[in-house]
Amino acid sequence: MNGAENLVHTLLAGDVDVCFTNPGTSEMHFVAALDRIDGMRCVLGLFEGVVTGAADGYWRIARKPASTLLHLGPGLANGLANLHNARKARSGIVNVVGEHASYHVALDAPLTSDIEGVARPMSHWVQTSASADAITADGAQAIIEANKAPGRISTLVLPADTAWNEVADPQAAERARADLRTRIAQASLAEKVSNEAVKAAAKELVSGDPAVLLVGGEGLSAKALEIAGRIAAKTGCKVMSEFYTAKLARGAGRVLAPRLPYAVDPSLAALAPFKRIVMVGARRPVAFFAYPDKPSLFAPEGSVLTQLADYHHDLEHALQSLADELGAGSLAPAGIAQRSAGDTLPTGAPTPEGIAAVLTALIPENAIVVDEAVTTGRAFGPLTAGSAPHDWLTGMGGAIGFAMPTAVGAGIAAPDRRVVVLEGDGSGMYNPQALWTMAREGVNATVVIFANHQYRILRGELSGVGAGTAGPKAAQMLDLDRPELDWVSMSRGMGVPATRATDLSEFAAQFKASVATPGPSLIELVI
Amino acid sequence: MNGAENLVHTLLAGDVDVCFTNPGTSEMHFVAALDRIDGMRCVLGLFEGVVTGAADGYWRIARKPASTLLHLGPGLANGLANLHNARKARSGIVNVVGEHASYHVALDAPLTSDIEGVARPMSHWVQTSASADAITADGAQAIIEANKAPGRISTLVLPADTAWNEVADPQAAERARADLRTRIAQASLAEKVSNEAVKAAAKELVSGDPAVLLVGGEGLSAKALEIAGRIAAKTGCKVMSEFYTAKLARGAGRVLAPRLPYAVDPSLAALAPFKRIVMVGARRPVAFFAYPDKPSLFAPEGSVLTQLADYHHDLEHALQSLADELGAGSLAPAGIAQRSAGDTLPTGAPTPEGIAAVLTALIPENAIVVDEAVTTGRAFGPLTAGSAPHDWLTGMGGAIGFAMPTAVGAGIAAPDRRVVVLEGDGSGMYNPQALWTMAREGVNATVVIFANHQYRILRGELSGVGAGTAGPKAAQMLDLDRPELDWVSMSRGMGVPATRATDLSEFAAQFKASVATPGPSLIELVI
Repeated sequence: MNGAENLVHTLLAGDVDVCFTNPGTSEMHFVAALDRIDGMRCVLGLFEGVVTGAADGYWRIARKPASTLLHLGPGLANGLANLHNARKARSGIVNVVGEHASYHVALDAPLTSDIEGVARPMSHWVQTSASADAITADGAQAIIEANKAPGRISTLVLPADTAWNEVADPQAAERARADLRTRIAQASLAEKVSNEAVKAAAKELVSGDPAVLLVGGEGLSAKALEIAGRIAAKTGCKVMSEFYTAKLARGAGRVLAPRLPYAVDPSLAALAPFKRIVMVGARRPVAFFAYPDKPSLFAPEGSVLTQLADYHHDLEHALQSLADELGAGSLAPAGIAQRSAGDTLPTGAPTPEGIAAVLTALIPENAIVVDEAVTTGRAFGPLTAGSAPHDWLTGMGGAIGFAMPTAVGAGIAAPDRRVVVLEGDGSGMYNPQALWTMAREGVNATVVIFANHQYRILRGELSGVGAGTAGPKAAQMLDLDRPELDWVSMSRGMGVPATRATDLSEFAAQFKASVATPGPSLIELVI
Repeated sequence: MNGAENLVHTLLAGDVDVCFTNPGTSEMHFVAALDRIDGMRCVLGLFEGVVTGAADGYWRIARKPASTLLHLGPGLANGLANLHNARKARSGIVNVVGEHASYHVALDAPLTSDIEGVARPMSHWVQTSASADAITADGAQAIIEANKAPGRISTLVLPADTAWNEVADPQAAERARADLRTRIAQASLAEKVSNEAVKAAAKELVSGDPAVLLVGGEGLSAKALEIAGRIAAKTGCKVMSEFYTAKLARGAGRVLAPRLPYAVDPSLAALAPFKRIVMVGARRPVAFFAYPDKPSLFAPEGSVLTQLADYHHDLEHALQSLADELGAGSLAPAGIAQRSAGDTLPTGAPTPEGIAAVLTALIPENAIVVDEAVTTGRAFGPLTAGSAPHDWLTGMGGAIGFAMPTAVGAGIAAPDRRVVVLEGDGSGMYNPQALWTMAREGVNATVVIFANHQYRILRGELSGVGAGTAGPKAAQMLDLDRPELDWVSMSRGMGVPATRATDLSEFAAQFKASVATPGPSLIELVI
């Protein structure tokens, strides 16, 4: 057993059985080990942003970490933006990054770089393994760290000689792995909130002032939101979600937790009515960006912010404790969304409202919606509340290019669920290589590209920051025409069948066909 | 004048007049400033790897830095791999990275990350600007650092409020810029080698032992190589180039400096005859990767390595001093390559030799060849030595995905020269978005994709590292079929006309047509 095989055995012992990968020479022993050891599903991405984004999506759905396999500093660097998103989503990931043989590093060969330095800004835990035997403990620790509640990024750097050297004491490695799942289970246990915190939150909700329960993280599961709905039934409080949601359970039959809006003014308006804000797995609401002469904090002046629980707490337990404290345990939840799809589908030009109506009618039950439609989709939240029940995933770190990679991982975690990707044509161009992996792995994905041929969000932001309207040079940096991107061609070029829709009837027909057909397909909806 | 305008004025004062960009909200004031101030050419990339790779290519041809404009930590992260390549190529680049308003950072909004931490591994100089007035000095220093011989990566982080605040003392800013070009000129002066170093190198070359002049960096210009050729004529030494070359002047009429091979065994063989190795802008030759039971160092046992000059020295001066010391100044250079294109173009299946013959015949005079054909192209070096004179650029840091972005920057630096990209289908998938920028900017590029539908290099590396041959799972990570990439579709989808060639006749005809047609086009050559 060499070091690479030791790592694969350790990963499998720690229930890490999917590896998203873009390997190079320094990872060849790991690749060879995967040939010899059963149990690891290997998924190739043609760019590392696909690899790390897929691992994020996998965690969000499977609730256990996947591993990645990345090629030295630059390979890790290419995956860093989606690791940033995963970190902010509090997803657990075990990165394995190949490194030169330890004696080769000092020679400063071309690919040499400070891998730990590259890893650190987006990792909670970084370690370089010193020997084939040390991999047992290092690998185990990497998995434990990734599983720590609510979920963390660990990065294990694997020098090539550490991978190819023989393990001196394979029995010791076996023994060390024996209790790994127990240790992981302990690490992943979320902390319980204190009785004091529960009582303080309850006091806020019965103060008589208008109150909102602002929920994030694991508090957005269907079960947790149902408890929130009972609390709302008892106290009259409103239930809301943070704008960015790693996984928000929504749709008909579920307690509706409207997301805070993206922009400053609507967010201020949404929170204006409330004097008491109780945060459950959420942080105090802040603006995505600062703007001159606009506040960065959204809570109304004079309002009281109370934190019942932070991200790392057991949020279902926190909500249940609060419900029990309030005597809300047996009430029917308030605010349950009703199915709102009309009998007829809209037709005509593809307005946001019309698109939302099509989605509401056609999103399949139990779908996973991955939303990166940063302008076209901004209004979809309220408009699609009456869809069949589904999960809604957004890019938690704001780094563009998360949706298609995340969809790969989500689809691999749940092959029986349809993944619906809502993607801008600008944001889609960051990691389009994900389409190829969708095709190869037969991911059941319906990818909708909203083709407005510009960074439309930035046109708004330009005036939003007080920089005026776009002159010719600014326009050149905000428009994606000249040439127009042809997503149908690009998608077919990567093996994903694609169609183009120019009105709502075409869109509805193509969407209906896509969700009924196994494997991926793409719809370019021309806006 | 706000801080953003102050920075644009400073960049222009420092002769930085091209900005490769992928902006976001935090950069909108900079974008607006570009609208109001004349003189900066702005080039949009749809992914940041394109942006930084283009800046690398721009430096290599223009020999002055471009600026980049990147969106916070994740935008910088996406450009990091090509910054790694640029750093190893010793290219000068001024990165401008937007950051949240300084008072907004502590709120931990989604896009918040440790930007300086992300920048540091690939930058020589990193600074966050503290105020609109401080930008004058910080921007000037960023440009000076980028110009320091031989060329460096500087990264200036620009908080949004620093950009939008008014400059308190605009006259002081103007005054501070007055001597900027002088200061830059001083910083960019390369150090001269000492007389002692020259004498020591000369002694090696006349020792009577077989000797090689191993040249890198600026020593690979046509003029510097001509001097090396005179030295060879005088001493009988061989002239060779490092394997990786930022810009190697080659082709008919130029002194041939064969590149060291990529792989270990051929490199050992190439250096085996020599007892004396004199390095001029080169470092001691080392293996790209370590392999079990193979040496990492290529110099034959018992050989003597002497460094005449390092990268940062004035290499033309070093070679001229050596030639003068040897009394070689007036000799005719030895080893001048002859034009070797045959009268008839080869036909039939696309072998490496046949492809090289087509290239030799058809590479236009003064072309810029950007080579990332990591397997198909490995033999091209010797076979294309008799092409018309041209420059040959390779990825200095070994991070895949450099060629198409670098071609964008090279083409913008030299619009009158044809850029020929030799690209693998694997490596091409890292930054394919560069095609769109080529189309938009009308870059005169001929992009050849060698479509072997696998990471062929890794099949060799798998056995090379002693990991055996690929089983089914390894094969799944090394093959790019299922589905096959269709580069013609992808290219057209990004606005670049494309054709497919399956034999040498088609390839030659399509190549001939491409180089004769303004703007970019792509040829998928099926191997």
